[in-house]
Amino acid sequence: MEKEGVQLIGFWVSPFVQRVKWALKMKGVEYEYIEVDIWNKSPLLLELNPVYKRVPVFVHNGKVLVESKIILEYIDETWRNNPLLLPQHPYQRAMARFLADFFEKKILEAGFEALCTRGERQEKAVSTVIEAMEKLEQELKGKKFMGGDSIGYLDLVIGWLGYKMPIWEELASIKILDSSKFPLIDEWINNFLSHPLIKDDLPTTNKMKDYFYHISRKLAASHFGSEI
Amino acid sequence: MEKEGVQLIGFWVSPFVQRVKWALKMKGVEYEYIEVDIWNKSPLLLELNPVYKRVPVFVHNGKVLVESKIILEYIDETWRNNPLLLPQHPYQRAMARFLADFFEKKILEAGFEALCTRGERQEKAVSTVIEAMEKLEQELKGKKFMGGDSIGYLDLVIGWLGYKMPIWEELASIKILDSSKFPLIDEWINNFLSHPLIKDDLPTTNKMKDYFYHISRKLAASHFGSEI
Repeated sequence: MEKEGVQLIGFWVSPFVQRVKWALKMKGVEYEYIEVDIWNKSPLLLELNPVYKRVPVFVHNGKVLVESKIILEYIDETWRNNPLLLPQHPYQRAMARFLADFFEKKILEAGFEALCTRGERQEKAVSTVIEAMEKLEQELKGKKFMGGDSIGYLDLVIGWLGYKMPIWEELASIKILDSSKFPLIDEWINNFLSHPLIKDDLPTTNKMKDYFYHISRKLAASHFGSEI
Repeated sequence: MEKEGVQLIGFWVSPFVQRVKWALKMKGVEYEYIEVDIWNKSPLLLELNPVYKRVPVFVHNGKVLVESKIILEYIDETWRNNPLLLPQHPYQRAMARFLADFFEKKILEAGFEALCTRGERQEKAVSTVIEAMEKLEQELKGKKFMGGDSIGYLDLVIGWLGYKMPIWEELASIKILDSSKFPLIDEWINNFLSHPLIKDDLPTTNKMKDYFYHISRKLAASHFGSEI
C-alpha cells in the first residue's frame, strides 16, 4: 500500500469503521474505501494488521494505523481544519477519552454479549449496559451532543447505539433503550441520526438484522459458549 | 477532595501509579501522595473511582481523573513546559498510543498471568510476552529510549519491565529477559533504571518479592482458577 492519499480498509457493519468514515466526512477528507471480509481474513488485512487482524485499518501516504479511537485522534491532529473532534481543554479531553473507553466496554461489548447469550449471563450483561446508560444519560444533561452544540469525538464513538441497539434488542428480546427512562439519550439519538452528516450513510436495517441474526448464533457457540 | 493543587492516590507497587509519579517528576509538578490499600478498598478510593475502584486516581484542583495513560496525556497537555512526554508528530503520537496499549496487554497483563499460573496456561502467556518483546526489541533500534534521545511517554508506560519482570521470572521460574536475545531491551533497561529521574524512587526488591509471592498465590486461586 505505498500509495499517496488516504485508504480505509473496513467492513460494512463495523461500528469501529463507521466512526472513522464519519470523522473523515466531518473533516472533508477524500479517501479510498476498501471492503474486506473480516470472517474470512483477507491477505490485505493480515498484511496490514498482523497484530489484531481487525478493521479499521487506516493508511495515510503509505503509513498504516489501526485501532479506531487512535485513528480518530490521528485524524483530528492531522486535519486541523474545523470542526475539531476532541474538546480543547485537557480535562474535557481526558474525560472524552475515559468515557469513550468506558462506553465501549460497558455498552458496546456488554451489549454485544447480551445479543449472543441467554439466561443469567445475558441478564448480567444487560444490567451492565443499563448502568452505563445511566451514566450516559447524566453526561447528556444540558447538551445537544456529547461534544456540546455540535457532533464530536464521543458522538462518533457511541453513534452506533441509535441504529444497532434496536436490532440487538429485537433479536435478543431485551430492553435497553427506553425513552421514559433515558429521555436525553432518546433525544440525542434523534439529533445524531437526523444530522446531515450521518443520516445518508447507514447500513439498511434488514441487512443488519440478517447479519446479526446469523453472527450472534455463530458466536454464541464458538465464542461465548452459550446456546441461543 | 475540594483542595487546590495536585493529589495522587496510589499503591506503592502499582506500575500504573509509578508511571504517573515519574511523569509528575519529569514535569516538576509538586503533589501530595496518598497511599491506599487496594486489597481492602478504602472509602476514599471507592468515592473517587466508583467505576473501576483502582489506582491511580489523579486530582487536580478538585477535578478527578482515572486511568493512568489518560492521566499521562492530561499531564502532558496541562504542564506544557519541557520535556514533553508524547512525540509531536501525529503519526508518532498514534504509534506511541498503539504500542502503549499493545505492550500493556501483551507484556504486562500476559506477564502477570505467567506469574500467577503454571503448566500450559503459563507457557501460552510466556509465548505471548516473548512475541511482544520481539516487537519491543525492533522498536528500540537506533534509539536510546523509546522516546528517542530522552525519556518519553512509552518509556514511562513500560518502565516497570526492568525492575518487576526479574522478580516475576524468579518467582514463577520463567525466562523472559535475555540479553543475548534482546540486547536492545537490555540496554534500554540499563539506560532507564540508571537515569537520575528514575533510579532513586523504586520499591525495594525484597519488599516486591514478598508482595508478589503472596499476591500471585492468592490470585492464582481466586482469579485465574489455577493452583501454584
